Amino acid sequence: MVEALRCLPGVGPKSAQRMAYHLLQHDRHGAKRLAAALSGALEVLHHCSRCNNFTEQEICERCLSSRRDPSQLCVIEMPVDLNSMELTHAYNGLYYVLMGRLSPLDGVGPRELAFERLLQRAGDGLVKEVILATNYTNEGEATAHYLSEMLRARGIRVSRIARGVPVGGELEFTDAATVAQALIERRDY
Amino acid sequence: MVEALRCLPGVGPKSAQRMAYHLLQHDRHGAKRLAAALSGALEVLHHCSRCNNFTEQEICERCLSSRRDPSQLCVIEMPVDLNSMELTHAYNGLYYVLMGRLSPLDGVGPRELAFERLLQRAGDGLVKEVILATNYTNEGEATAHYLSEMLRARGIRVSRIARGVPVGGELEFTDAATVAQALIERRDY
Repeated sequence: MVEALRCLPGVGPKSAQRMAYHLLQHDRHGAKRLAAALSGALEVLHHCSRCNNFTEQEICERCLSSRRDPSQLCVIEMPVDLNSMELTHAYNGLYYVLMGRLSPLDGVGPRELAFERLLQRAGDGLVKEVILATNYTNEGEATAHYLSEMLRARGIRVSRIARGVPVGGELEFTDAATVAQALIERRDY
Repeated sequence: MVEALRCLPGVGPKSAQRMAYHLLQHDRHGAKRLAAALSGALEVLHHCSRCNNFTEQEICERCLSSRRDPSQLCVIEMPVDLNSMELTHAYNGLYYVLMGRLSPLDGVGPRELAFERLLQRAGDGLVKEVILATNYTNEGEATAHYLSEMLRARGIRVSRIARGVPVGGELEFTDAATVAQALIERRDY
């Protein structure tokens, strides 16, 4: 049981032992519920065949919604990024969740992320623009660059969310790399 | 003396009293040096007739430098912002320091900031582009907007540093307003 608990992210041997003792001694009910929840989720949750996010259906509710604009497809790294995008209330298109980012050192390449599935999804004839919203980390940037090459080669319009000074940001308290990019990517006003 | 010390920003009556006692009791030499430094600076420092930054000369060294590109003029709010821009090593043009930003509630309008001087400076025939690098606060934005209207009316090309997700930034930890702007101001990739 201790060994099994170590599959949780951030849980080392000591934490795992503490968790095991706690569950066995003080919270057998919680342990039972956790086991059931895990089994249940594993059974019913799989990837949406369109957006690759987790869902209980074959195609998730968002992808089936008639209120969303099918001409825009926003590519994000993880399901949690979808919340960030939805919180803006500024986007009404559809999503594609990569479930990761290119990371050669960790052995994650285009094949592991199933880029072919995204290319197929973007080539459905309805998508007019793919918005790359991967993070502005090195890995997120590399992923965006790689994807843009593949998508453009198939004649699909590709855009990238803007990089620069954050809203409410002051130059004095913004790192030099961001100010430099904000300068280089300045736009006519 | 206590009253006079209160002109320093962030110094209230109690701090001013503590400062006065300290100087008189423990650091008369420091007080003397401070008095001389203030007098000296007031005597020799004034605004550069070209960039409006503080200088001891009529025109500051940066404005006189032959190594800087006179076709670009970067407008910033305060002298401290000049450091941020220079730290990027991505800009080699000249500057204009507003010494503030539009702030109607504090009684700071276009006249107080001497916008006419900037317009005159930008119209020297050498400047081809004015880069507005005021902060992305409400007041900085209002200042940029106002200036852009005035400058464009005189046929000068105006640009604004980019706004968006900071370098190294992850969507998950970026505020919704910034993600929204990054989306709205996305660029073709």
